[in-house]
Amino acid sequence: MSIASSLTSATLCGASIFPKALACSTEFPSNLHSPFECSKICLTSFPSSRDPKKNAIWNLTRNVGPIQGIRCHAMQAGTRELKKFELSDVIEGKQFDREMLSAIFDVAREMEKIEKSSSQSEILKGYLMATLFYEPSTRTRLSFESAMKRLGGEVLTTENAREFSSAAKGETLEDTIRTVEGYSDIIVMRHFESGAARKAAATANIPVINAGDGPGEHPTQALLDVYTIQSEIGKLDGISVALVGDLANGRTVRSLAYLLAKFKDVKIYFVSPEIVKMKDDIKDYLTSNGVEWEESSDLMEVASRCDVVYQTRIQRERFGERLDLYEAARGKYIVDKDLLGVMQKKAIIMHPLPRLDEITADVDADPRAAYFRQAKNGLFIRMALLKLLLVGW
Amino acid sequence: MSIASSLTSATLCGASIFPKALACSTEFPSNLHSPFECSKICLTSFPSSRDPKKNAIWNLTRNVGPIQGIRCHAMQAGTRELKKFELSDVIEGKQFDREMLSAIFDVAREMEKIEKSSSQSEILKGYLMATLFYEPSTRTRLSFESAMKRLGGEVLTTENAREFSSAAKGETLEDTIRTVEGYSDIIVMRHFESGAARKAAATANIPVINAGDGPGEHPTQALLDVYTIQSEIGKLDGISVALVGDLANGRTVRSLAYLLAKFKDVKIYFVSPEIVKMKDDIKDYLTSNGVEWEESSDLMEVASRCDVVYQTRIQRERFGERLDLYEAARGKYIVDKDLLGVMQKKAIIMHPLPRLDEITADVDADPRAAYFRQAKNGLFIRMALLKLLLVGW
Amino acid sequence: MSIASSLTSATLCGASIFPKALACSTEFPSNLHSPFECSKICLTSFPSSRDPKKNAIWNLTRNVGPIQGIRCHAMQAGTRELKKFELSDVIEGKQFDREMLSAIFDVAREMEKIEKSSSQSEILKGYLMATLFYEPSTRTRLSFESAMKRLGGEVLTTENAREFSSAAKGETLEDTIRTVEGYSDIIVMRHFESGAARKAAATANIPVINAGDGPGEHPTQALLDVYTIQSEIGKLDGISVALVGDLANGRTVRSLAYLLAKFKDVKIYFVSPEIVKMKDDIKDYLTSNGVEWEESSDLMEVASRCDVVYQTRIQRERFGERLDLYEAARGKYIVDKDLLGVMQKKAIIMHPLPRLDEITADVDADPRAAYFRQAKNGLFIRMALLKLLLVGW
Repeated sequence: MSIASSLTSATLCGASIFPKALACSTEFPSNLHSPFECSKICLTSFPSSRDPKKNAIWNLTRNVGPIQGIRCHAMQAGTRELKKFELSDVIEGKQFDREMLSAIFDVAREMEKIEKSSSQSEILKGYLMATLFYEPSTRTRLSFESAMKRLGGEVLTTENAREFSSAAKGETLEDTIRTVEGYSDIIVMRHFESGAARKAAATANIPVINAGDGPGEHPTQALLDVYTIQSEIGKLDGISVALVGDLANGRTVRSLAYLLAKFKDVKIYFVSPEIVKMKDDIKDYLTSNGVEWEESSDLMEVASRCDVVYQTRIQRERFGERLDLYEAARGKYIVDKDLLGVMQKKAIIMHPLPRLDEITADVDADPRAAYFRQAKNGLFIRMALLKLLLVGW
Repeated sequence: MSIASSLTSATLCGASIFPKALACSTEFPSNLHSPFECSKICLTSFPSSRDPKKNAIWNLTRNVGPIQGIRCHAMQAGTRELKKFELSDVIEGKQFDREMLSAIFDVAREMEKIEKSSSQSEILKGYLMATLFYEPSTRTRLSFESAMKRLGGEVLTTENAREFSSAAKGETLEDTIRTVEGYSDIIVMRHFESGAARKAAATANIPVINAGDGPGEHPTQALLDVYTIQSEIGKLDGISVALVGDLANGRTVRSLAYLLAKFKDVKIYFVSPEIVKMKDDIKDYLTSNGVEWEESSDLMEVASRCDVVYQTRIQRERFGERLDLYEAARGKYIVDKDLLGVMQKKAIIMHPLPRLDEITADVDADPRAAYFRQAKNGLFIRMALLKLLLVGW
Repeated sequence: MSIASSLTSATLCGASIFPKALACSTEFPSNLHSPFECSKICLTSFPSSRDPKKNAIWNLTRNVGPIQGIRCHAMQAGTRELKKFELSDVIEGKQFDREMLSAIFDVAREMEKIEKSSSQSEILKGYLMATLFYEPSTRTRLSFESAMKRLGGEVLTTENAREFSSAAKGETLEDTIRTVEGYSDIIVMRHFESGAARKAAATANIPVINAGDGPGEHPTQALLDVYTIQSEIGKLDGISVALVGDLANGRTVRSLAYLLAKFKDVKIYFVSPEIVKMKDDIKDYLTSNGVEWEESSDLMEVASRCDVVYQTRIQRERFGERLDLYEAARGKYIVDKDLLGVMQKKAIIMHPLPRLDEITADVDADPRAAYFRQAKNGLFIRMALLKLLLVGW
């Protein structure tokens, strides 16, 4: 879906009001996210949209009549620069450049504040999200649904869309999307086929977020990983990151390497059992983008020099009958107290979860164990994306 | 559930107020669906109900005390004529006569406006719907849940009530209903057995909506089909409709034929493979109700003369082992560009969805392809029914 | 989770305000549960909590600035006595003493009023409950979700947490809890393993309610049973109760016997087929707590003398291949019209539901049939517990 942000001038209460009137925003209460009363006339602007529903908001506000104490349901108080990003769907990590990541992270930080404050946000009040999951992923689903509800929105859930009577009867994904978009304002879809999210977005007149499509993309995971590094280390330029574990099959480490290449002076170490080494496509991509990388088999040595140790699970399901190979691979690189001992004081350990024993439980209490904070960051990133896709910057 | 609408007079704020006071309604804001402040004393009337909860509303309002600025949570501002319809449950298409259909469609049109406006409706705020689905039907479930949430209501969901521990342990439907009615204000039930909805409604002290009971009834589908014809063609009297595809097993075409018989000068064409012809019971019913009908094997010729071409899916599951018969039947009558070419400019194509290839995808872009609008109308009809059953006309 | 209730004094609007200022509460509107406007400065106190979110509420209020018309989001107007109970999790029946039961029941009675009133409660507005069910139990789940929604809260649902991708991949319960607590404010968990709830509560920084853990505890059922006796009979001291049916495997009758031992002059009769007799641990417990009990095989005689006949289902699944023993056991003690004939006028029949034919359907219409009211009481008890755990006494 495409949203073109714009400012509109309008005659409100008999006076012509121009975008500049936004300056009055400094007189407003600091909590801009919920409706409030004000005794001055102000301009509210909304992203103009293909969605007639959203345009209707503006019209409603415009026609509110010559009374004081206008109830504003939203206000655009940002600078115009922010508005250059158009975010209509979230399909793949590649769609984000460095500036957009930075802008999204700013919004995610606002979301942290909203989540921590106790007053119920109403930013997405009246909006309905459909979680259309063709394969169950309770963690991802709960995270999106929590994000929507924390912002005052509502959710329609289906976790077994594959057995969706219609899909089972042979309905195309396009037809399903055309039906579901009639019932909701945004679709969060998980699918078992690579490319399904792109297909859905091309069909839908409402925004689509890819919550993972088969071996393909899982862009919100990639965003939350980068956001976590930014939040914990304080920067993305100049960092060194060890990617550890199953680098051949791990969707998250591949996406992370891809996104890190957008930043300056990044150094990446690959530490993995031989059988699940990082593939050449990513190595070539890093090289061609001027990112320094090296492979190592010495996790202790690498960990002592890195800002981030990103551990991953060796996925048993990738080894089929070869349980011997799986057992050999999974025990090789473990993050434990000994590793903590050599790590820098401000370094962090990340993991996309779930973890088995590739990080020992006694590491959890160390402040450098960032993986549960990382999972929580998924909430903030998803809140930010839902906010941006539904009501704009 | 039975609701007897009535007006009550009450002494409010020291003054005796009689039903006539409803005339004051013209001074109210036009949006009657959400709570509002008013500086005059007004009468609020509610359908009196077996549900003590709803009567309590009235009592609450009555006892509000001698203050100005009363917050009214609902208001009955309609004319008395509307109130002659009593709607306590939605069990089968037969329960609706022509006048009631017309009145429900008026409410559905209001619902369209509410859904399109961006302000969150609070008509059903505080109401809780239980979707008790003994077999999954994600499309129907999402449609009902969207309807409830678009009106500000809340939902309790169960899509596998058949494996509901209690049902699996041998609990009767009646006992399940008696428990679930304690947790909710309305039950939307889908069941695998014909007659289950009637049984549930007889037990429940709250309204029950049949969302399909086995081979039996699916009344909200029938209503949305008729509503779609009314909306698209602008009338129901004097129309000509082609029912195409699986007429023997299709619950929707049978119900539609039944409801169309309530209107004047309707002409129905049956176009189907020999093996899935419309059964005699419906033909006899139409004849005895003065509805003209004929069978035809020439879809092109019929389509050129009809206001509505109602296509249906040939259901593979009805053919068992005889896949040869299925293949022969399914390819026989296809709605495609060629058919569009002979159809009238203002005619429409309908389909209950999901569709396979009985309507080719290149038809979708034609404005006469009404099937996704038809699916959306399901939302409006369900909003209307939920509103009528929970807060009355 | 542990909550330590406390009063805080604070400088608000330039004036030092001490706890005594709570006296101003009498000037407030009687509905203390929803936000309201007041023209006087008042003190709001919150349970201080490990949850930074809740403390943030206080800070927010404190910093509201020197203006009139403060919007209070909650107010503590109770007496200090009530505050001596600390309720941080609900894990097992044993954690409740007689005084705490009484205090919870007072809150449950308030909840009855809220549920019966039509105005939407907002006591738990902005709070999010995660129902983490490792085995389906639709009745219990719907009851908790209804309780949360009746109080204005929101719900994240998962009914198949056992197949939760993460649990299936070998994630520990602790890791799952650490993730889910990031998405919600309270966790209601059902698990297949005894002790799982205690483990979850030890991990979580938010409250955990045990909704049944395997053969272990189901404390909310135990509470609703005692609450039902209190509500229906009007007292708990001095009552006589017949526990009937499967006393060996029935978790509910065991917990009920345990809780009844906290009251004075209670007499318990055990009436069960030989094969499912009450076990010695409970009998010994009752004896050592001075509770009189006896076993009987004459249900008619016992029922004529009891205040409560608590019938239970003989669970077929406990008999394995021995269907003959099951059939013999299940038909032995039936509650029917004949039994009603000998029961006292004010006695009641209870059953945890679902029932098969151990209570005949013709008993339902008798006012002494309390089992559907008992199921409904589960809603009030769960509303009370959610309220107490999230916003305190």
